[in-house]
Amino acid sequence: MRIGVLGAGQLGRMLALAGRPLGIEFLMYDPSADATGGRVAPLVVGAFDDRRALDRFARRVDVVTVDWENVPATSLRAIARSVSVRPSPRALALAQDRLAEKRLFARFGIPTAPHAQVNSLTGLRRAVARVGLPGVLKTRRLGYDGKGQAWLRRPRDLEAAYAALAGQPLIYEAQVRFKRELSLIAVRGADGDVACYPLAENRHANGILRVTRAPHLDRARQAEAERHLRALLEGLRYVGVLAVEFFEADGRLVANEMAARVHNSGHWTIEGAETSQFENHVRALAELPLGRAEARGHSAMVNFIGGMPAAADVLAVSGAHLHDYEKAPRPARKVGHATHVGASASARDRAASRLLSLARAAGG
Amino acid sequence: MRIGVLGAGQLGRMLALAGRPLGIEFLMYDPSADATGGRVAPLVVGAFDDRRALDRFARRVDVVTVDWENVPATSLRAIARSVSVRPSPRALALAQDRLAEKRLFARFGIPTAPHAQVNSLTGLRRAVARVGLPGVLKTRRLGYDGKGQAWLRRPRDLEAAYAALAGQPLIYEAQVRFKRELSLIAVRGADGDVACYPLAENRHANGILRVTRAPHLDRARQAEAERHLRALLEGLRYVGVLAVEFFEADGRLVANEMAARVHNSGHWTIEGAETSQFENHVRALAELPLGRAEARGHSAMVNFIGGMPAAADVLAVSGAHLHDYEKAPRPARKVGHATHVGASASARDRAASRLLSLARAAGG
Repeated sequence: MRIGVLGAGQLGRMLALAGRPLGIEFLMYDPSADATGGRVAPLVVGAFDDRRALDRFARRVDVVTVDWENVPATSLRAIARSVSVRPSPRALALAQDRLAEKRLFARFGIPTAPHAQVNSLTGLRRAVARVGLPGVLKTRRLGYDGKGQAWLRRPRDLEAAYAALAGQPLIYEAQVRFKRELSLIAVRGADGDVACYPLAENRHANGILRVTRAPHLDRARQAEAERHLRALLEGLRYVGVLAVEFFEADGRLVANEMAARVHNSGHWTIEGAETSQFENHVRALAELPLGRAEARGHSAMVNFIGGMPAAADVLAVSGAHLHDYEKAPRPARKVGHATHVGASASARDRAASRLLSLARAAGG
Repeated sequence: MRIGVLGAGQLGRMLALAGRPLGIEFLMYDPSADATGGRVAPLVVGAFDDRRALDRFARRVDVVTVDWENVPATSLRAIARSVSVRPSPRALALAQDRLAEKRLFARFGIPTAPHAQVNSLTGLRRAVARVGLPGVLKTRRLGYDGKGQAWLRRPRDLEAAYAALAGQPLIYEAQVRFKRELSLIAVRGADGDVACYPLAENRHANGILRVTRAPHLDRARQAEAERHLRALLEGLRYVGVLAVEFFEADGRLVANEMAARVHNSGHWTIEGAETSQFENHVRALAELPLGRAEARGHSAMVNFIGGMPAAADVLAVSGAHLHDYEKAPRPARKVGHATHVGASASARDRAASRLLSLARAAGG
């Protein structure tokens, strides 16, 4: 059994490290010869729109999945003619477009922020009039880690925001005044079995995930999130891991966005859950029974952004586990993370603040 | 940081899989081009007595350790002239000779079975007269998994036993009528810090470890075993993981043998302890702070010997984790293992019997 992974970033790397103990092989595909996933598994270097290279790659593997969510849908559909792509090209394409994603949420009764499609400055004025201020103008495609977004707080922000993003399909979304950001990771097996992880609470800084704490213990919200994820997984006949980021606002969950792949807010599951999101994604792709998704203790995952602290400093935090992606440091780049699993939430939170200090000192 | 591993079996493989998340690289060395460790890290093919190949290998790494405990001591000492070898060639050499090992135990006040060196049939008669029957005649070197051993139950067994093993240095040991077999895994860091795992209880079949259960909760025996391991680790200024197998007999521990490396009876620590024995060995070699060695729940590790059950059958046991070494099946060969971590010892034991049935059906 060999899994092909489109994109060889840290997600592909962690998939391979989780799958090798199961005797499953990996083949990575990435435009860059020094992609980190290629340091733990064989790597094919090619562009994501090089159909001949993708065809050759597809012939060497049993199933294809993605590390990078923006592999062109046309490439995914072409690959799917010779080998199964999981999650499906359709699910991946839906997650690539913020508007299609919102419509998908609506179809399954999942609340979203008020929003409107924007194709012109006039369209933006209409959207703001309908949806209200403040809000955020976003590119429908290719945005991540806060990129491709502009905030509108007052009417006079409209023109600058539009100028910054014009020339591509846009969406305007009302600001959600949320109490907290939560995400749910779930996985559906090839046999239709579904496992849901506990909710995780996420804190962002400058649009980039900084820290995740799990489990976030709230039975009502957990049930609500699981209902939403199950609807999506079953509706799409999805196979693999799916992540949805929610805002908790006015006592309910509002879906912000989904990721049709393993997700940064699930990295804590490597040490903090019975089975990691990476292993469960691999199990789903290999048509194996899913593993249990319960939390083990109380976890905090801290991202290292822009630079790595010294390994010795991280591991001097008792109970900390280090993941160094072996990536060159660069501002705003995720280069590693650490996870601490504590016996109590307070022990976890003390360790998390030490890890956060190290993260800030190393990379800002 | 690159760690060189002499021998590329499943232990080397699991070391590399544990060390890669820390950003540590590995280079394997093995006489066989298809050694399993070479499937997860680059492999140099060479004989363990090829001094030029070993020299070239040593120049490519920062520290050397062993997957195979019988790398010739002369090779280890030669390597140690250019790069540090951990554990030290001295510790490795002591563990290669059952008589030297027994003398080492005695030096640190660790009880052993009555025993005597045997170099001739006359010597064996003298040894039996002194030590008594029943007992076991063993080769001093290169024995493992019950190989190189002959039982003596009656006086008339002497000649056949001697004939089977003659021509190599031997040791005769009195049988220990034990209540159970226990092992302790401990690790010493480069800074002298020591972490001890909880005791594990081991069951063998035909001289090969079949199942390990941990933690074995007995505070008195735990303290006794830790005292013995700390004496060895500190006495040898040891760096890395050390395992000692004990018999529990007459309410105390009698040391059977030691392994100067990660050990099969510690495989449960991958899922069942805060930090695995593999990660802690890597941390020690990389001069990083050690990780916590506490158990998480109640673990059972079942070896797959001679053949692998179907992955789907193993993973259908809720909570089971699979390790497939990707080795060709062969009678009496360890080809994989599964670990189950339960919330209680009884849940763990139920899962263990299901895994044992699968193991027996697949390989005997």
